[in-house]
Amino acid sequence: MEFSSKLLQTAVDEVAQLPGIGRRTALRLVLHLMRQPLSQTLHLTSALQAMRENIIFCKNCHNISDSELCEICVNNNRSQDIVCVVEDIRDVMAIESTASFRGVYHVLGGKISPMDGVGPSDLKINTLVDKVRSGRIKELIFALSSTMEGDTTNFYIFKQIQDSKVIISTIARGISVGDELEYADEVTLGRSITNRIPFELSIKS
Amino acid sequence: MEFSSKLLQTAVDEVAQLPGIGRRTALRLVLHLMRQPLSQTLHLTSALQAMRENIIFCKNCHNISDSELCEICVNNNRSQDIVCVVEDIRDVMAIESTASFRGVYHVLGGKISPMDGVGPSDLKINTLVDKVRSGRIKELIFALSSTMEGDTTNFYIFKQIQDSKVIISTIARGISVGDELEYADEVTLGRSITNRIPFELSIKS
Repeated sequence: MEFSSKLLQTAVDEVAQLPGIGRRTALRLVLHLMRQPLSQTLHLTSALQAMRENIIFCKNCHNISDSELCEICVNNNRSQDIVCVVEDIRDVMAIESTASFRGVYHVLGGKISPMDGVGPSDLKINTLVDKVRSGRIKELIFALSSTMEGDTTNFYIFKQIQDSKVIISTIARGISVGDELEYADEVTLGRSITNRIPFELSIKS
Repeated sequence: MEFSSKLLQTAVDEVAQLPGIGRRTALRLVLHLMRQPLSQTLHLTSALQAMRENIIFCKNCHNISDSELCEICVNNNRSQDIVCVVEDIRDVMAIESTASFRGVYHVLGGKISPMDGVGPSDLKINTLVDKVRSGRIKELIFALSSTMEGDTTNFYIFKQIQDSKVIISTIARGISVGDELEYADEVTLGRSITNRIPFELSIKS
């Protein structure tokens, strides 16, 4: 693509560096901003800059926060001794939106993935192990995605804390609510039969 | 979606105002920026701001430009008396990439579309009519999309300049190069038969 303006070209190049946005989409977005009032562009750029420069990660759970400890970690109504281990902040938001969990989180910041050059030291695993060894935690819930990388990360953490007295669980895998059995994949269906639960429990939840 | 940080929420809200980007995608993009070095965010925001504040539209053809007259309008190797009328700058880029046109452009900035509240006065039609009436233009090529709005705009302009001696043409409609006849829509196939061209011409182009 040949641009008639260097300023336009630079803007498109920068926007096209965002994941999932190609040069055509970038051009469409940039031309949209050109048609809008200047204030919209200024609001957008100052919001991005303020976020990138001032955002803090919670000292305790590594969730994104505006203060040293996030709102979940300082909330006395939540069980601080039940910790759900998740990959990133989007998982925290997903679980929070279910309103089914009253414990706290530990955000690892990714999964162990040698293919992408992510090793254990790139993740917040040490602080999790320290938390468990301190004896303040009763239960640890693994809520990583059930992929090779997720399972590897679960296993790596498990190996380091298996001597502790903490209860370790993982979230249940099974058929999604509302899904037809015939379209479910074999692994999921197999697990949901192996890990069947008493009927009385299922009608309560 | 509940955010754990006001800064994050503001950034997501702003990004989600871009066309075709929902709140989930906006969150993904913003979290990506959080993982990248601060410099990437600063480059992005300063590029957008510089573009929005400093970009100029060519006085002659209304194309986006870095100077008062765009590179195409000041190029002496191009026929300044053959003008291609297009909707927006993306069309200029599309035609330029074919390297088949050695005239200049006139960017209308949209199409007449009462449904979207776009009337003739919102477009750069007056300056085009003035150009034609000045007698400096030999040929006018309509290259708007062949939709109801495009045809309306073509007709509106035609009505205003039909007394001038300018040659008026439109780009050819027909079967795309490489396309199978059986999958072409009837209107396009019909037009491509009606507007058939001598075989000798087709093997030259």
